[in-house]
Amino acid sequence: MTKIFLSMSVSLDGIAGPQVDHSDFSALDADAMAVHEAVLGWVFPMRSWREQQGQEGGEDSVDSRVWAEQFDRTGPQIIGRRMFDFGYPNWGENPPFHAPVFVATHRGGDRIDKAGGTSYTFVTEGIESAVEQARAVADGKDVLLAGGVSIAQQALAAGLVDEILLHVAPVLLGRGERLFGAAQVNLRCTEVVHGEGADHLRYVPR
Amino acid sequence: MTKIFLSMSVSLDGIAGPQVDHSDFSALDADAMAVHEAVLGWVFPMRSWREQQGQEGGEDSVDSRVWAEQFDRTGPQIIGRRMFDFGYPNWGENPPFHAPVFVATHRGGDRIDKAGGTSYTFVTEGIESAVEQARAVADGKDVLLAGGVSIAQQALAAGLVDEILLHVAPVLLGRGERLFGAAQVNLRCTEVVHGEGADHLRYVPR
Repeated sequence: MTKIFLSMSVSLDGIAGPQVDHSDFSALDADAMAVHEAVLGWVFPMRSWREQQGQEGGEDSVDSRVWAEQFDRTGPQIIGRRMFDFGYPNWGENPPFHAPVFVATHRGGDRIDKAGGTSYTFVTEGIESAVEQARAVADGKDVLLAGGVSIAQQALAAGLVDEILLHVAPVLLGRGERLFGAAQVNLRCTEVVHGEGADHLRYVPR
Repeated sequence: MTKIFLSMSVSLDGIAGPQVDHSDFSALDADAMAVHEAVLGWVFPMRSWREQQGQEGGEDSVDSRVWAEQFDRTGPQIIGRRMFDFGYPNWGENPPFHAPVFVATHRGGDRIDKAGGTSYTFVTEGIESAVEQARAVADGKDVLLAGGVSIAQQALAAGLVDEILLHVAPVLLGRGERLFGAAQVNLRCTEVVHGEGADHLRYVPR
């Protein structure tokens, strides 16, 4: 059965990324880039991540295997508008998703099809509708809530998350945008994996 | 060599306890107690914790063994004034520390000696002095920074922490007092242990 799972990288003090002016990404300064790198930098050396981007080489690490397992189970993905706006120029003509992507947004738009199986569909009816549409085309795979923070918080608050996979980077950042908001959820930890660049904690709601 | 280590329980969203009016602990309401229980409730069933309190029974769980290892290495402890004021009435005449306790506080006071090896010494010269005084009587053991949040944040900000042991309770609380403040510290994770009631992450500064 298709699971809706949230997978996010986070610092040990719960920071998912820099606190930025989402209306102007070009204003990302050196400190914002440092926060971004501290939270997400562990993915770049991995063989599985590089493969997903169409690059060769990389390390066949514990982290890489966790990432590969996640990629294997993932069908459609749900992302927020900010993540889309930030990532779209970089994801290019053969984006790393290789699956339908549903963008939860207030601003609609026509579906965009790219090479390699990636499509972008804009969903203006809220996170529940995005989950429903993604589930409908999951075809036996799981649906990944890939970020950012707003999507994670909305999905948790709405009780839509079947599993949380947290990749915890070993750093206290002391500034930035917090992953978790006001949602109150009792969980059960089902797995902890000690990786080279991050530690991977898996939870299911009780 | 004596290590200065921080050991704290925390929810998955980084909450160390309820947000309370520290001038009136009698005002703790049901929600504050629920937050307290969510963060710390995992310790009460453990055999090692019960033994430390002079109680029989309890579970010989993974959590209990982690706790026993921590107790075995611990000599002097450092706590904050709020934790002292909150705990003192409950710790009784034979407190669970069985070691010198240094209370970092703005208000001085005479040293208090209790049964079973526990003493309370009030240190008004700041966290560095408390660490120095504790280290001087460690006698081959390690010094535990036991809480609360203010002590943890001061020690991290001052670069006094040789090791962080986080006990992560599987719950998103969405309210309460955050463990980590503005300190920026690069860490290395040296161990993760999957327990029954919490997961135990060990870090050392890089």
